[in-house]
Amino acid sequence: MLVCCANLVCCCASGFCLASCVQGPAPQPAAAVEQQQQQQDGKETKKKDKKDKKAAGLTLGKGCAVVRAHLEKAAAGAAGTLQVIDGGLAAADAVLGGGAGLDAVAGAIAAHEAPAVKLLEDLRVVVEANQARRKPKVAKGARDFLPDQMAIREAAFGTITSVFKRHGAVAIDTPVFELRETLMGKYGEDSKLIYDLADQGGELLSLRYDLTVPFARYVAVNAIGNIKRYHIGKVYRRDQPQLNRGRFREFFQCDFDIAGSYAAMVPDAEVLSVLVEILRDLQLGKFTVKLNHRRLLDAMLAIAGVPPQKFRPICSAIDKLDKEPWEVVRAEMVEEKGLPGDVADTIGQFVMLRGEPRQLLAVLTASEHPLAQHPDSAAALAELSSLFDYLDALGALGPISFDLSLARGLDYYTGVIYEAVLEGGNVGSIAAGGRYDKLVGMFSGKDVPAVGVSIGIERVFAIMEGQARERAAASGTAIRATETQVLVASIGNGMQVKRMEVAAKLWAAGIKAEFGFKPNPKMGDQLGYALEQGIPFMVLFGETELQQGQVKVKDMAAKTEETVALDGLVAELQRLIAAQVAS
Amino acid sequence: MLVCCANLVCCCASGFCLASCVQGPAPQPAAAVEQQQQQQDGKETKKKDKKDKKAAGLTLGKGCAVVRAHLEKAAAGAAGTLQVIDGGLAAADAVLGGGAGLDAVAGAIAAHEAPAVKLLEDLRVVVEANQARRKPKVAKGARDFLPDQMAIREAAFGTITSVFKRHGAVAIDTPVFELRETLMGKYGEDSKLIYDLADQGGELLSLRYDLTVPFARYVAVNAIGNIKRYHIGKVYRRDQPQLNRGRFREFFQCDFDIAGSYAAMVPDAEVLSVLVEILRDLQLGKFTVKLNHRRLLDAMLAIAGVPPQKFRPICSAIDKLDKEPWEVVRAEMVEEKGLPGDVADTIGQFVMLRGEPRQLLAVLTASEHPLAQHPDSAAALAELSSLFDYLDALGALGPISFDLSLARGLDYYTGVIYEAVLEGGNVGSIAAGGRYDKLVGMFSGKDVPAVGVSIGIERVFAIMEGQARERAAASGTAIRATETQVLVASIGNGMQVKRMEVAAKLWAAGIKAEFGFKPNPKMGDQLGYALEQGIPFMVLFGETELQQGQVKVKDMAAKTEETVALDGLVAELQRLIAAQVAS
Repeated sequence: MLVCCANLVCCCASGFCLASCVQGPAPQPAAAVEQQQQQQDGKETKKKDKKDKKAAGLTLGKGCAVVRAHLEKAAAGAAGTLQVIDGGLAAADAVLGGGAGLDAVAGAIAAHEAPAVKLLEDLRVVVEANQARRKPKVAKGARDFLPDQMAIREAAFGTITSVFKRHGAVAIDTPVFELRETLMGKYGEDSKLIYDLADQGGELLSLRYDLTVPFARYVAVNAIGNIKRYHIGKVYRRDQPQLNRGRFREFFQCDFDIAGSYAAMVPDAEVLSVLVEILRDLQLGKFTVKLNHRRLLDAMLAIAGVPPQKFRPICSAIDKLDKEPWEVVRAEMVEEKGLPGDVADTIGQFVMLRGEPRQLLAVLTASEHPLAQHPDSAAALAELSSLFDYLDALGALGPISFDLSLARGLDYYTGVIYEAVLEGGNVGSIAAGGRYDKLVGMFSGKDVPAVGVSIGIERVFAIMEGQARERAAASGTAIRATETQVLVASIGNGMQVKRMEVAAKLWAAGIKAEFGFKPNPKMGDQLGYALEQGIPFMVLFGETELQQGQVKVKDMAAKTEETVALDGLVAELQRLIAAQVAS
Repeated sequence: MLVCCANLVCCCASGFCLASCVQGPAPQPAAAVEQQQQQQDGKETKKKDKKDKKAAGLTLGKGCAVVRAHLEKAAAGAAGTLQVIDGGLAAADAVLGGGAGLDAVAGAIAAHEAPAVKLLEDLRVVVEANQARRKPKVAKGARDFLPDQMAIREAAFGTITSVFKRHGAVAIDTPVFELRETLMGKYGEDSKLIYDLADQGGELLSLRYDLTVPFARYVAVNAIGNIKRYHIGKVYRRDQPQLNRGRFREFFQCDFDIAGSYAAMVPDAEVLSVLVEILRDLQLGKFTVKLNHRRLLDAMLAIAGVPPQKFRPICSAIDKLDKEPWEVVRAEMVEEKGLPGDVADTIGQFVMLRGEPRQLLAVLTASEHPLAQHPDSAAALAELSSLFDYLDALGALGPISFDLSLARGLDYYTGVIYEAVLEGGNVGSIAAGGRYDKLVGMFSGKDVPAVGVSIGIERVFAIMEGQARERAAASGTAIRATETQVLVASIGNGMQVKRMEVAAKLWAAGIKAEFGFKPNPKMGDQLGYALEQGIPFMVLFGETELQQGQVKVKDMAAKTEETVALDGLVAELQRLIAAQVAS
């Protein structure tokens, strides 16, 4: 019953969705996908509930009793309801005449909705009373970050942000929701994955799907001519989550983009350099950045004889080449998308081309090569030639692979496109981007050319978490979730206030310190805590030490202990901490 | 017409909400508030549209033409629709017999919904085609952060986070949305301000309203016995935004909480110390932390003769004392909430008590004082006595004001409560918190006592932004949004690749550097950019310098220039940067 009641509460006020809730999710495609996902996820509570229900016959809980009372009343007043609707339709008819009937329609519907609103209110009370009994959980596809995961996340963000700042980028932020119309028409088929907010009166909002469209909207709204910015934020997709592969419904993207009219390929080279520097600095292992050019791709399809209206569908077939062999992709082109076999075979010869950027460029620009002869691809090849020179100057050409099979899904790219993959990893691409010169213009009517990259940080977290756990296991220590430098400990009873005074002295000097919350902590417990948490120093004292104005300082790694005057404690700890940082 | 079409797109699939959209927002209280707010905000576009429409008669746009076609069809098939509903009611009747009719209801409703779904699909196409023509904007009550605002925000977060870390707190994060049932029944009347996500099949979700309830859910889900954590994140309230007073619908909270069973008042003292340290470190000016105890408040009301069921309503009247004079609050108690006049007057005598913590404590604990005699308040006063000793030990007692008029709105507090206000500021409270020992138990059934504080950082941003602009104006410089240390500039043409090579050398050494994107930048432009952006050093070269393996380094503040060998450039810049940081 729980599932049923929960759904009922938020059904729209028309009352007519009621049945779909009693039945489980409404028979819309999205709901069906959702249900399928939940089953695939192995969370079959709902299914089990249904089975139990069938076996035991339908048992009515409190919520159902409320529904029953409502329906009984509704049945009794059925004739009245039909009249209301009749009136509503008549009024709607009047609308067609010129709008005079609008008020009548609203009145009829409002009268019709009142009992349903009452029902929902009653159900809300029942559900709220029930909810304390339920096991709390996190929304599907989202996750809590535990303290050691946060420590890793902060380290990753620190590395990434320092590269962004090294390149003189500014930070910006945008709201987590946008007007729905801002996101509409930007993501093609994937629009169905956008989370909408409920219509609670006022604007229609959706959660952002990526950071690129909000960035373009930001550039347009704030009338920005040029900007080099980074943005780290959560984005939302109602996709099939695969938690073990780092695929979530709420996840972070780290974006770096350069917008503005500049010398060709110079910003593109810097964006790629930023990507390469980040992947190097994160030390995730060997990686490759596959690179292609949209206009080269289009020219290639034109040369092969693909009609222009099939460019995008054929591109999306090509996009599968990193997962499927050529035979499967060829079959899709010929059987599903109706390409003649010889056209597909020509494409097949192109997309097998990949390799060291300048070598492949030399092959493609040789005067007899069809790509050198087609005006569009010739221009693209000239751009790539400059790009490779710039990347070489920036020391970022090494990991680049010029790869004619790279297609990228999104429609808005207009120039260079790229995608980074880890070698030997089974995590798919961890970053991707390209040039999109027309997106800002979709908002402001005035194009601001732009190029950027988006790093899918969840997969990076997963890898770094594995590395951190390995390191911790090898060294026999835990992953540190705090930065505490000193534990203030005491011997004997009644020292709570003294521990607090010493800790406050350290805090005032900027030293990161903790003290025990128990009134009379045991020495063994305090030592154990410091070791377990990896706290490098302890300050220790009892009644005797304090009377002499002294404390002991324990270096946990060196296993040494010294007596220090209370007056000199801060200076001594600062010396020890500095020495530790330096070593 | 735009407003009307936009609403139509997301109406629930029943089709019956149609009228309320044509009419403007549905006649629900929330929607009414929303409309009122929009008018108060002075954004009267909608109103204006309506006026225009009235003047010109109803003109049909593309969207209306679609609606018209739908209604014509619906009118033609009205008899059929009525039959479907008739069948639906009959089937619903069958439910009462034992559930066999559920499928029939769903089927009937599904058949009924199909044309509405088609209508919505058609409307979506119209709206998407229209949307390129609209001026893009940010959702009401939300905001973009511009680069200089981000720099200030990062500085504020840096200060706050460093206090949290100084106290050995771990960081956690939770999803931006929670299951709706997690938030239900936690916020009393304010629940109406919660943003719900649309029901797109699957779970019912809402955006988080604060970080405290998600924290309690987190402690319960992850079966945590004790934790000292901080959490900085955005929360969402469909409230009346007052942008000039730092009141947004999407805003940050910075929370610090200690959960776990510890010696009484020790964690409470540390939380208050964290609050005091943060407000000191942020340098926002003089501040006061008002402090009270929930059980003292309840005893006070009991002594005055307030019946227990009126404790919360009377508390919420008391809560207004920071905005209203006593006469107004007394009138609310007597006229609206039915207290006898003498009972209100007794309360009036209590709530006027405020002052230096230990002085007021001495007054209240004097044996003849009624609060010393009531068992609940006597226990609370004993707790406060320890708390003041601990706060004194931590050096955090100074800004505390013991204030019997502090009540706090939220129901879940069970012990000490507090609220920080800036003196002379007109921004209301900038931080608040207290002890809530029963909230985790609402999820897990097992209480984990907890105490915490939440800092409302938007108001802090506004103050810091003002301070930064004043400083910038006084010194004649801009607020720096980047941390760039070096601008790589060149003299003469064709030096793009050379500028890139030098920049890459600096980046590799961790130096924050930019180079111009124009192919042949003018020296004046490059100098101007460095000055405008506050970049402290420039590296300059032309063909001649490079042939000699040399560059020039310009110190912008010192207005000096030196010639350096390219090989020694990194070392020289690191020396200059270190000297600048030290000065």
